[in-house]
Amino acid sequence: MAAVTLEELARRFRGQVRGDGTREIDGVATLAGAGPRDIAFLSNPNFHRYLATTRAGAVILTEDDVRHFSGTALIVDEPHLCFARIAALFNPEPAWNPGIHVSATVADGAQVSATAWIGPQAVVEAGAVIGDNVFIGPGSFVDRGARIGAESRLVAHVTVCRECIVGRRCIIHPGAVIGSDGFGYAHDGASWVKVPQLGRVVLGDDVDVGANTTIDRGALGDTVVADGVKLDNLIQIAHNVQIGEHTAMAAFVGVAGSVVIGKRCTFGGRAGIAGHLEITDDVHVTGTSLVSGSITKPGVYSSAISSEEAGTWRKNAARLRQLDALVRRVKELEQKVQRLIEGEKLD
Amino acid sequence: MAAVTLEELARRFRGQVRGDGTREIDGVATLAGAGPRDIAFLSNPNFHRYLATTRAGAVILTEDDVRHFSGTALIVDEPHLCFARIAALFNPEPAWNPGIHVSATVADGAQVSATAWIGPQAVVEAGAVIGDNVFIGPGSFVDRGARIGAESRLVAHVTVCRECIVGRRCIIHPGAVIGSDGFGYAHDGASWVKVPQLGRVVLGDDVDVGANTTIDRGALGDTVVADGVKLDNLIQIAHNVQIGEHTAMAAFVGVAGSVVIGKRCTFGGRAGIAGHLEITDDVHVTGTSLVSGSITKPGVYSSAISSEEAGTWRKNAARLRQLDALVRRVKELEQKVQRLIEGEKLD
Amino acid sequence: MAAVTLEELARRFRGQVRGDGTREIDGVATLAGAGPRDIAFLSNPNFHRYLATTRAGAVILTEDDVRHFSGTALIVDEPHLCFARIAALFNPEPAWNPGIHVSATVADGAQVSATAWIGPQAVVEAGAVIGDNVFIGPGSFVDRGARIGAESRLVAHVTVCRECIVGRRCIIHPGAVIGSDGFGYAHDGASWVKVPQLGRVVLGDDVDVGANTTIDRGALGDTVVADGVKLDNLIQIAHNVQIGEHTAMAAFVGVAGSVVIGKRCTFGGRAGIAGHLEITDDVHVTGTSLVSGSITKPGVYSSAISSEEAGTWRKNAARLRQLDALVRRVKELEQKVQRLIEGEKLD
Repeated sequence: MAAVTLEELARRFRGQVRGDGTREIDGVATLAGAGPRDIAFLSNPNFHRYLATTRAGAVILTEDDVRHFSGTALIVDEPHLCFARIAALFNPEPAWNPGIHVSATVADGAQVSATAWIGPQAVVEAGAVIGDNVFIGPGSFVDRGARIGAESRLVAHVTVCRECIVGRRCIIHPGAVIGSDGFGYAHDGASWVKVPQLGRVVLGDDVDVGANTTIDRGALGDTVVADGVKLDNLIQIAHNVQIGEHTAMAAFVGVAGSVVIGKRCTFGGRAGIAGHLEITDDVHVTGTSLVSGSITKPGVYSSAISSEEAGTWRKNAARLRQLDALVRRVKELEQKVQRLIEGEKLD
Repeated sequence: MAAVTLEELARRFRGQVRGDGTREIDGVATLAGAGPRDIAFLSNPNFHRYLATTRAGAVILTEDDVRHFSGTALIVDEPHLCFARIAALFNPEPAWNPGIHVSATVADGAQVSATAWIGPQAVVEAGAVIGDNVFIGPGSFVDRGARIGAESRLVAHVTVCRECIVGRRCIIHPGAVIGSDGFGYAHDGASWVKVPQLGRVVLGDDVDVGANTTIDRGALGDTVVADGVKLDNLIQIAHNVQIGEHTAMAAFVGVAGSVVIGKRCTFGGRAGIAGHLEITDDVHVTGTSLVSGSITKPGVYSSAISSEEAGTWRKNAARLRQLDALVRRVKELEQKVQRLIEGEKLD
Repeated sequence: MAAVTLEELARRFRGQVRGDGTREIDGVATLAGAGPRDIAFLSNPNFHRYLATTRAGAVILTEDDVRHFSGTALIVDEPHLCFARIAALFNPEPAWNPGIHVSATVADGAQVSATAWIGPQAVVEAGAVIGDNVFIGPGSFVDRGARIGAESRLVAHVTVCRECIVGRRCIIHPGAVIGSDGFGYAHDGASWVKVPQLGRVVLGDDVDVGANTTIDRGALGDTVVADGVKLDNLIQIAHNVQIGEHTAMAAFVGVAGSVVIGKRCTFGGRAGIAGHLEITDDVHVTGTSLVSGSITKPGVYSSAISSEEAGTWRKNAARLRQLDALVRRVKELEQKVQRLIEGEKLD
């Protein structure tokens, strides 16, 4: 990407320039690392001190924060969002030519768009459909009947199992597995009998799936991840889960079978949701929390406990295991004190 | 699979038909999704309402539940188990022809059964033994001296490290790693010194391993997973763990080094077991619970805490960190009240 | 490795022989499994009983423990460390010849040392640099501009994304992903907008990365893992994290974005660290604990809760959710009792 004037950036991203709008910008950087042709932004109020010394060509700031800065600024309502868009402008995905690498294996009966790329050592099975401008990275595997929507990108070593659907403009990071069998077994009195997992995984458009995340196919019916959902690394989505639009989950989130999650929810790292629950729209669960009942009201939910010095913690944790007994002691005290008070009054 | 009459299903799976036994069935479905040639089952008491409107050719029900349903039924003791078996009947694994894909790499000195399949881009090293009717999926890797027992299936992108053993009829899902080095280090005062991990992983027969699950090889001696064990996705089994027959673990379970687990145990999602413990047979640990002492008595064990509205939770969590002090306050109160009561009596 | 006399082992590893120093040793084993040509060690005080019956040629013991044993011994200060070194002596990594496997894909413009090995089905892209004696295992992928330092080993199915750096003598286990995009999004009011992740991952020397562990690249600037850090399986290191020298983390540890961790720390399995915190040197966090504030003082920190019988636990957990109310009840009691005591005094 060639350089762009600050004025031009302001025009494209609906900001206002304070200072020299003719300045040429050709990259993004941190306040501390920026040079005179970079634009930076204030990512964190704690970083105000860096404003005094930054060498950035310009800084993206809110109307409110710009008074802390004496240099050239691009004033916008949402600096982080503006930064994301300018960063994308200057750092497009590396270009690639369409085609099928000589070492890839594309089965007869696979449909591959002429504008798609099938990378080295990748495997595309019969009946798979690879859309326009799709990038199938090295060592990825698209099984029979799976479909990858236009502009999607399987970065590398991705597995998409049979019949599963990936929407458009999805990014699937290395090691992610889409459509592994759900964990479904019946018990015959002596051993576990596998329940065939006959559904699919259906990812909407603009879904991102993190590295080594796993999404199981439905038992009957599908596991469904709606448009705009963003999943971090090492997440587990069990069979028949439904996740609503624009919900985001951080690493290690675990969603048990048949859970239905609403739109615009967020789940902090390591949050867990027990099976068969319903979580309404606009619910936010803090990291490490366990949801074990349905949530019908938008809001923030938590069961996280912060660590403290281990000796102190051990005493508190031991008391926790006697808490029910403590409550009974308090109840007894309350009765005794009540009797004492009543005795006094009688006097 | 061709269609089968309901009578025939009843005969094979020891059920009883109520209604038209000549009806032909050729698939399984949910109550809501079933058509007249499908058989469905009542998976959940909450779904009674679907019985009134289902278009299923037949429904698998217990003697007890059949009174809630007016249509054609297959009456059995264990509907889920019966459903699993009928589903498997109608949905066998896709057929494949034996052989070695032209893009696979099979080293000289590997022993591959004539009835096995080595998929595209798979690698089988010297000294590996691939049994009858084994399916080595795309991009899988079987290292030197490893053995894969008859009828087992490495779905795709599976790694089986050197000398490790996979039993018969195992299913290993994509991204699983069998036999990575255990996390063993000695400390030399300044840095960590790797302890060579010289044992193997030995999986019994009918073991299932979920996507991206990791099972470390033993340090000395083996990590052993007995017959019929079922492991979900993203589980970690550390070096020298032993897991007894027919134990099942949900996603994210972590078992630290040298733990010995009995038969028929179950571990909910994200349960953790600290190192060097022994867990007897028939122990059930609820999701998110931490086992930090050996368990010698069958039963259910838990330390899970359910989330609640975050503001309320934060207050409770803060109090938890003062719990030991609270107990001391209650003790002091008890003494004071006792003295007051005794004082009264003295009056 | 040929056999070595016990005397020679004592000389190399600075120990003292008690008994027959001419005895020849050619392997390591457990006390229970050792034969007359093996050396064993006492790994655990609980295993004293095995000393009486071991058939080991020699046992590595401390000065203190040697009195419990009547056989031939190698006396050292640190038996575990000595054992690690002797085990490595007798069990070197399997030898391999340098070269590029015929099925590997090495792009024009990749720099591969003549002493490196590129295994079957591996992919090395343009601009990648593969150092001396590097082992790139089967199915591994080294993207554009990435560098793998001398003597490092990518065991199998490893992904090293573009521009990332792996130091010397690192071991990266199967399925690990180095340099996936960080989880960075801005919100535009309706949906998530990806923030390009422009930094790298930089691993120092002697870093070990466990199976299916993921380390995200920095957003701006790098994610940095210093020399000698050891990471177990299924760990998540988010963007822009910095980990100090010789820190070790057990399985499932999760480190959120921009955390700075000191030197010589240890994190038990499933420990979590919230974003943007600083953890000083020599901090030890117990397994399953959540760190949600910066730690400025070396020591041990915890918030782990051990499981107990589920019925008992459920009562305690329910009380925990009423803990704030309990504290208020106690406070009220204290006031009443105080008034009663004062009333008495007034009498």
